[in-house]
Amino acid sequence: MGHRLGDASAPARLAAPDEGIGRDELALATRNHGLPLETLRHDVTPPGLHYVLTHYDIPYVPDDTEWQLTLGGLVRRPLRLDLADLRAFAPVTTRVTLECAGNGRALLTPRPVSQPWLVEAVGTAEWTGVPLRRLLEEAGVGPGAVDVVFTGADHGVERGVEQDYQRALPVDTALGADPEVLVAYAMNGAPLPPQHGRPLRLVVPGWYGMAHVKWLREVTVTDTQFTGFQQAVAYRLRARPEDVGEPVTRIVPRALLVPPGFPDFMSRTRVVRPGPIELEGRAWSGRAPVTRVEVSTDDGHSWHEAALEPDGGHRWAWRRWRAGWTATPGEHVLSARATDAEGHTQPLEQPWNRGGFANNLVQRVPVLCLDEPEPGQPGADADAGAGAPE
Amino acid sequence: MGHRLGDASAPARLAAPDEGIGRDELALATRNHGLPLETLRHDVTPPGLHYVLTHYDIPYVPDDTEWQLTLGGLVRRPLRLDLADLRAFAPVTTRVTLECAGNGRALLTPRPVSQPWLVEAVGTAEWTGVPLRRLLEEAGVGPGAVDVVFTGADHGVERGVEQDYQRALPVDTALGADPEVLVAYAMNGAPLPPQHGRPLRLVVPGWYGMAHVKWLREVTVTDTQFTGFQQAVAYRLRARPEDVGEPVTRIVPRALLVPPGFPDFMSRTRVVRPGPIELEGRAWSGRAPVTRVEVSTDDGHSWHEAALEPDGGHRWAWRRWRAGWTATPGEHVLSARATDAEGHTQPLEQPWNRGGFANNLVQRVPVLCLDEPEPGQPGADADAGAGAPE
Repeated sequence: MGHRLGDASAPARLAAPDEGIGRDELALATRNHGLPLETLRHDVTPPGLHYVLTHYDIPYVPDDTEWQLTLGGLVRRPLRLDLADLRAFAPVTTRVTLECAGNGRALLTPRPVSQPWLVEAVGTAEWTGVPLRRLLEEAGVGPGAVDVVFTGADHGVERGVEQDYQRALPVDTALGADPEVLVAYAMNGAPLPPQHGRPLRLVVPGWYGMAHVKWLREVTVTDTQFTGFQQAVAYRLRARPEDVGEPVTRIVPRALLVPPGFPDFMSRTRVVRPGPIELEGRAWSGRAPVTRVEVSTDDGHSWHEAALEPDGGHRWAWRRWRAGWTATPGEHVLSARATDAEGHTQPLEQPWNRGGFANNLVQRVPVLCLDEPEPGQPGADADAGAGAPE
Repeated sequence: MGHRLGDASAPARLAAPDEGIGRDELALATRNHGLPLETLRHDVTPPGLHYVLTHYDIPYVPDDTEWQLTLGGLVRRPLRLDLADLRAFAPVTTRVTLECAGNGRALLTPRPVSQPWLVEAVGTAEWTGVPLRRLLEEAGVGPGAVDVVFTGADHGVERGVEQDYQRALPVDTALGADPEVLVAYAMNGAPLPPQHGRPLRLVVPGWYGMAHVKWLREVTVTDTQFTGFQQAVAYRLRARPEDVGEPVTRIVPRALLVPPGFPDFMSRTRVVRPGPIELEGRAWSGRAPVTRVEVSTDDGHSWHEAALEPDGGHRWAWRRWRAGWTATPGEHVLSARATDAEGHTQPLEQPWNRGGFANNLVQRVPVLCLDEPEPGQPGADADAGAGAPE
């Protein structure tokens, strides 16, 4: 009758058909949050709107100046740096679109039981910090280095394994210039908010969120491949529980729409009035630059080219797109689909794996177009964009 | 076969027994979010951690300087003010704990179907702005005034009713000095984040969140009682659908614990090791100052007095409390209960109404205390606070 760590954890599982979201999934959903999709209009996401996924607790760091980052393991000169030391390096700022590897999970059938994202686990920020390769050069990576392991201050249990959150990158990625990995201390020009890793986090442009270790306190160069829980057990693409699986790495392409019109509070159905509507949204890929966005207003039966705005020099950030639509009374389903320069695109049938990772099924936005503008209603014309008949 | 607003809305309903959280509730939960409870440690909540509940879309306001606030209706001198005009008034800053009226809803049986909060829909911020009474004095409230109506820029449908979000206060409350209602333009010393009402919101210290109208653009003094949807239909305490119901107004007392130890990712069970642990948390009431917090470590069977910190002059903000506990191996349920100066306290049986409003059932925090510290585990002693046996 002992009380062991394993008693706190349930095994990974899939929801039964028609099983609603459970108390455990809800407990994650009430504390983590996605980007409200109407705020896709912002080029750079204000911090409180950027998606957040924290495995354990957000560490309480009352005094940033006491934070220490160590670089050790297979290096010639182990380093111990505080924030002032890091700020003494030439800063680099990169605009990065960050997406959770589990985005879209709650729409899958069967549904992997975990953080129940719909499609909103994304955000774009300007991250400022020191290139990781500068720090590794300073420390001097020894011969035979294989992985660089990153340890955060967040501590918890997962499937019976007590752990500090840890992830690794291959040494070539860690030392690479494209993308250039950052040890970031600022987000949108201000110190990191607590939920985004205050005071330090890793930023790995193009990679899913699990690689961007928050509350970073330790960097360790190893001569073996890292086999920690978040690398070898979690964040793998598996069809069956016994598969070794492929690791989750870079972000596959996705486009999202700013839902047009206005919502019903409870159903979240979008309502528009008849007439021309400019659709807009964002598209990104961590594999290669997005080169094409198509839009469908008939639930994927036909597709039309959207106008893609230039990337403005921000290779690792989403791009805005626009497309016209003339709404007619009735029910419609809007979708957008991104394709990148390597030809990766979004599937119309769900890509499924047991973790629900890297799932970029096209978004479906149901829209109700009313028969006509309602005379005397406030805002009757604001979203339909067309003159109301008298 | 027309397409009308009502087609977007479902009627208010209660979940069936054992019905999981539905797609509609999840769509609210992924965009709105609560306070991660470990961040109750902050006296003032960083904006991205403060709870957010938006009925419709967050309005996109690219340029604050174009925002206009009008004061009209039954006044002698209608006003039209921009942000610069408002900043010209002597600013007032008030620390306020804000809680959603629906906090705790998802724990109710039966569960009202709406935003599915557990207990985390709360936050505390320093709001800076102009006292509403100063603006109303400037405009000159006419004789016979009954209500003051506040209109936000957020627009949507709710149970078939298209609306801008609107709420009213009785004229005496709007003109009152205790609490002093603010038209706020800053949160924690910075411009309001978009999700908290940028550029202007109402702050009504002591009242539930529905009164704090965000994206405020219009203040109208009326000689009749306001009967808009959010006043007369929503936010009423009703046992049966046909009841008129009592309006939801001021916040009833609540205490919350910082969950001790560390969590399991999926079950959110808290894990501690044997030994002394300092429990801490916050307590608040919008009715009268909190005067007492009690703690139970045996699922409500016995209660012990917690030490309540002084309010530091912040009458409308939560107060910190602390209590000792010696954890012993096994499963425990921790709770805290607040009482205010008027004798209001928290029930041990759920207070129920059809909206799930003002429900301050005591929090239950299940904790697993392990048999002993795990040798060699990182952080083995960090949370138990006691020396590990060798």
